[in-house]
Amino acid sequence: MLETTILPQFSDSDALGHINYQATVRWFETGRLPIYRIFVGDFEIADRFLAMVRMEVDYAGEMRLGSEVTVRTRITEIGRSSFHVRQEAFQQGRCCSSGHVVLVHYDLTTRKAIPITDELRESLRRFSKTD
Amino acid sequence: MLETTILPQFSDSDALGHINYQATVRWFETGRLPIYRIFVGDFEIADRFLAMVRMEVDYAGEMRLGSEVTVRTRITEIGRSSFHVRQEAFQQGRCCSSGHVVLVHYDLTTRKAIPITDELRESLRRFSKTD
Amino acid sequence: MLETTILPQFSDSDALGHINYQATVRWFETGRLPIYRIFVGDFEIADRFLAMVRMEVDYAGEMRLGSEVTVRTRITEIGRSSFHVRQEAFQQGRCCSSGHVVLVHYDLTTRKAIPITDELRESLRRFSKTD
Amino acid sequence: MLETTILPQFSDSDALGHINYQATVRWFETGRLPIYRIFVGDFEIADRFLAMVRMEVDYAGEMRLGSEVTVRTRITEIGRSSFHVRQEAFQQGRCCSSGHVVLVHYDLTTRKAIPITDELRESLRRFSKTD
Repeated sequence: MLETTILPQFSDSDALGHINYQATVRWFETGRLPIYRIFVGDFEIADRFLAMVRMEVDYAGEMRLGSEVTVRTRITEIGRSSFHVRQEAFQQGRCCSSGHVVLVHYDLTTRKAIPITDELRESLRRFSKTD
Repeated sequence: MLETTILPQFSDSDALGHINYQATVRWFETGRLPIYRIFVGDFEIADRFLAMVRMEVDYAGEMRLGSEVTVRTRITEIGRSSFHVRQEAFQQGRCCSSGHVVLVHYDLTTRKAIPITDELRESLRRFSKTD
Repeated sequence: MLETTILPQFSDSDALGHINYQATVRWFETGRLPIYRIFVGDFEIADRFLAMVRMEVDYAGEMRLGSEVTVRTRITEIGRSSFHVRQEAFQQGRCCSSGHVVLVHYDLTTRKAIPITDELRESLRRFSKTD
Repeated sequence: MLETTILPQFSDSDALGHINYQATVRWFETGRLPIYRIFVGDFEIADRFLAMVRMEVDYAGEMRLGSEVTVRTRITEIGRSSFHVRQEAFQQGRCCSSGHVVLVHYDLTTRKAIPITDELRESLRRFSKTD
């Protein structure tokens, strides 16, 4: 499991006075950064990358400006060419939002899914543990 | 059904050269604007509003800069205090992305869900039709 | 001069209850879209594009959700390889924000500025008029 | 002076393959967070806050995904009710972008500028030093 600390920014709020739902989408991306880096360490995009095919976010409770958010990120399934990531955002000890994305290893030239090699698979597994 | 035309902006793209998944989230919000206006016509937020409790987006095909996107928006279920919205984004006649959100009518003071009145319900039904 | 109509979105607001300063930055980009299209009609980015070298925004008055914003865009200076764009955002007849950007015609391979051809210059001049 | 470390996110990039100019705007806001906190420690917005009246950004060199960005933030002038902040974004030791914002202490009820008290002024001065 990965744990990332987020400091909510003023622009993350909306007129309801709390954190806008789109900020959660951005914070979950921040939480997945070490996973992207397995595929493109330095982000010099060459011929293959990860494409998002599905995203789900549940908003259980509102988050507010003024206190840190902890994003927990875990890979829950690894398929032939895609994998699943589950994430949770905690503020003051309370899980306020949970997310789930499916990412596909994708060839930018052929525009087709390509297998996740054993080496990449091994690296992904480091983020599969529950602790 | 609602239909909204979107012009992709350069900042909607990412280093893969296509439209970033977060742009779709913003465009779907643009498509829902007439629905929000049923609840708060002039957005002078008083004591109640809509809170998002769930968002799902499926990314079926990539979208690109340079040609218009049409977002189709339809209310598919109306419950006691919440309702469901289904959306699709088309580019050059192809459905590239589909979305689903659940919105709750929400009292900002008590921080509780409140019933959707018959009058509001009637207005929402205008967006329930498939054409 | 170009004129673009913007519908403020809920996510454009912030916890002060009005439009966040970053939304203005996005809206001004929307207003410049026809200018970008002179350089890359279909945005299939090849070897040259426009790079921003300077942006200024003045926030004279707050904008709010619930009423349309009109963005006026005008090219004010055309140099050898760069040009200046001035923009204003009006809400309910009042100029709430004004912007100024400098864009450079830029070769993506050599990473150097390149001259604006006479043909491009002619097209840019269409947006130089004050009406 | 304040120093903040930023990890560029994939969504911060654009189709030119580098960091989009809007990401710099967000990162500079991140760099100013400790300044906002002087005025509203916990962001429970009451009756007064900071309004942006001017923003300038110069883009001297491109930034890329894959390596950390350091944002340096310094208060350069403190007036009766407003102050100036200058910022720089460094990547791999090179200053790629510099910014300047003017923020006004602002009463949300009267919608007028209000003086910066001596106590606030003292706190702001902590960020005026060049080291």
